[in-house]
Amino acid sequence: MIVLEIKDIKAIIAKVGYQDFFAQLNDTLTEDYKNWHDFDKSPRVANHVDGGVIELMPISNAEMYSFKYVNGHPKNPAQNKMTVMATGQLSLTETGEPLMFSEMTLLTGFRTAATSAMAAKHLAKKDSEVLALIGTGAQSEFQFLAYSFIFDLKEVRYFDTDPAAMRKFEKNMARFDIRLIPCKDAREAVQGADLITTCTADKKYQTVLTKDMISKDVFINGLGGDCPGKTEIEKELVESATIVVEYLPQSRVEGEIQQLGADFTCTELHEIVKGEKTLNVATDGTILYDSVGFALEDYSVLRLIYKLAKQHNIGTEMELIPELDDVKNLFSLL
Amino acid sequence: MIVLEIKDIKAIIAKVGYQDFFAQLNDTLTEDYKNWHDFDKSPRVANHVDGGVIELMPISNAEMYSFKYVNGHPKNPAQNKMTVMATGQLSLTETGEPLMFSEMTLLTGFRTAATSAMAAKHLAKKDSEVLALIGTGAQSEFQFLAYSFIFDLKEVRYFDTDPAAMRKFEKNMARFDIRLIPCKDAREAVQGADLITTCTADKKYQTVLTKDMISKDVFINGLGGDCPGKTEIEKELVESATIVVEYLPQSRVEGEIQQLGADFTCTELHEIVKGEKTLNVATDGTILYDSVGFALEDYSVLRLIYKLAKQHNIGTEMELIPELDDVKNLFSLL
Repeated sequence: MIVLEIKDIKAIIAKVGYQDFFAQLNDTLTEDYKNWHDFDKSPRVANHVDGGVIELMPISNAEMYSFKYVNGHPKNPAQNKMTVMATGQLSLTETGEPLMFSEMTLLTGFRTAATSAMAAKHLAKKDSEVLALIGTGAQSEFQFLAYSFIFDLKEVRYFDTDPAAMRKFEKNMARFDIRLIPCKDAREAVQGADLITTCTADKKYQTVLTKDMISKDVFINGLGGDCPGKTEIEKELVESATIVVEYLPQSRVEGEIQQLGADFTCTELHEIVKGEKTLNVATDGTILYDSVGFALEDYSVLRLIYKLAKQHNIGTEMELIPELDDVKNLFSLL
Repeated sequence: MIVLEIKDIKAIIAKVGYQDFFAQLNDTLTEDYKNWHDFDKSPRVANHVDGGVIELMPISNAEMYSFKYVNGHPKNPAQNKMTVMATGQLSLTETGEPLMFSEMTLLTGFRTAATSAMAAKHLAKKDSEVLALIGTGAQSEFQFLAYSFIFDLKEVRYFDTDPAAMRKFEKNMARFDIRLIPCKDAREAVQGADLITTCTADKKYQTVLTKDMISKDVFINGLGGDCPGKTEIEKELVESATIVVEYLPQSRVEGEIQQLGADFTCTELHEIVKGEKTLNVATDGTILYDSVGFALEDYSVLRLIYKLAKQHNIGTEMELIPELDDVKNLFSLL
């Protein structure tokens, strides 16, 4: 069993390069979303605790099984801890044997952004040029990067209630050739945007984006409404948009559509990826991709990173599973 | 975050000694079972796959959160893999921050045996001397060890359908001062037994123990009936015994009591440990402790092993969670 640390993920990305890594991740996600019906899926299992939530996200097909451990504690930054931290494991389905344990805080950033971009590739206008980010926390640069490989972006408009987070974003973005427009509020940020990502952390019903802020048809990725009692987008805007989600049984409980009732039905992303349904802002008006993060996306990034780790001989081999001459002789280890 | 390998568990046990380790584990389990109502509990999440099952077992209280990953693939030994392999993680509830990732195949052996012994301490006759083991696979020696620190055992009678597993057991037991009686079948094994543990692996309804085999009141730990469609004990025997389970919502689906219908109710182990109910073979006749393995037991062994690892400075510190000056600057890692 190999263990991948932060430094190993960095080493893999450094070997492969951002653009190629996002391209491979897009291909892996597309392949897995096309095989949607072959997966044993379930909504994630949440322990709602004081100040946050701790979740497990399992999924399997005939080949592999993966799970992610992930927390969401919005007040963590006040004590200098990250809001979201994640780890995960990949196993063989046939024997249950674990292959890899990995950090997944970084991998979650990558897979979330890659899934947003894959959805936008299908759903947003092909000539989208202006990206608005509401919330410039840990995910923001990953979002920009993933979109930048799909669209010919000219401008990023951004707003965060935390000025330090806006400065952090500006500094990280300096290395990219893109026009940066810091904004005084969400309303200013979304002006003229073709793509909007909302990604805020408070675990409450809030409205960072309202219908009257939207003046033209736009692709919205509601990223931060991802937990019961945690939404970001005004109900009127949600109701007026064409909605796409990852997995209805989970999104009805966690997504923006929790505002629309338990029997609400809409398109699932796999239908778009497989080409069973075609939706686009150009023909269907404003589209809300109401993403909450689904286990399949962790499966995809774990199986890709496992392949790359093996290919580049990266990671630490550890004795986490007993290797026995007689498999019934567990006691011989002692 | 520290990572504990097989060698680390061995090192901890070697430092502490079997007897003291089981004593500490008994104390930890007792403390946690006494605080039963403070835990956020749920039945484990199972992916039923070809040839087995893969499960996640989460639990939390205000202090810590733990989960275990565990598979059960009865046909694994044929390809020289263990039937059961496990890993697990311990985190702080307040922030969600992972503290430790550990091997749990060995730890599962220890916690399962320690829980059996804790239950037997309350439920079996105090002067129990004869232990019968039906199934001498990976768990068998752990079962003997745990019981041996609670009871003054004189004799172990055992049977397994695999003669090699019986020879393995005999060889491992040579170091202990105990009379060993290999038996030709389960009926012979349970003759005169005060304590019976059934621990077989086949994922099907089977009857390794029937009512007519039992000639005196006895404590039975049904260990291997732990999965939907996987039982070991004849329905008539289950119906005639006083039954104790760990957690009814899970045991009704997985335990021997799945034979008794979805509304069956009985005593839960925490009631016994807290002294809210008193049951004993001496006064109540044959008692079946219908255990399936519950997440609380993993929580107990993980928090104990974490304490001991820290105390003895054992384990590998690894960069599995980002350490950032600015916790919103995940991108700065790249």
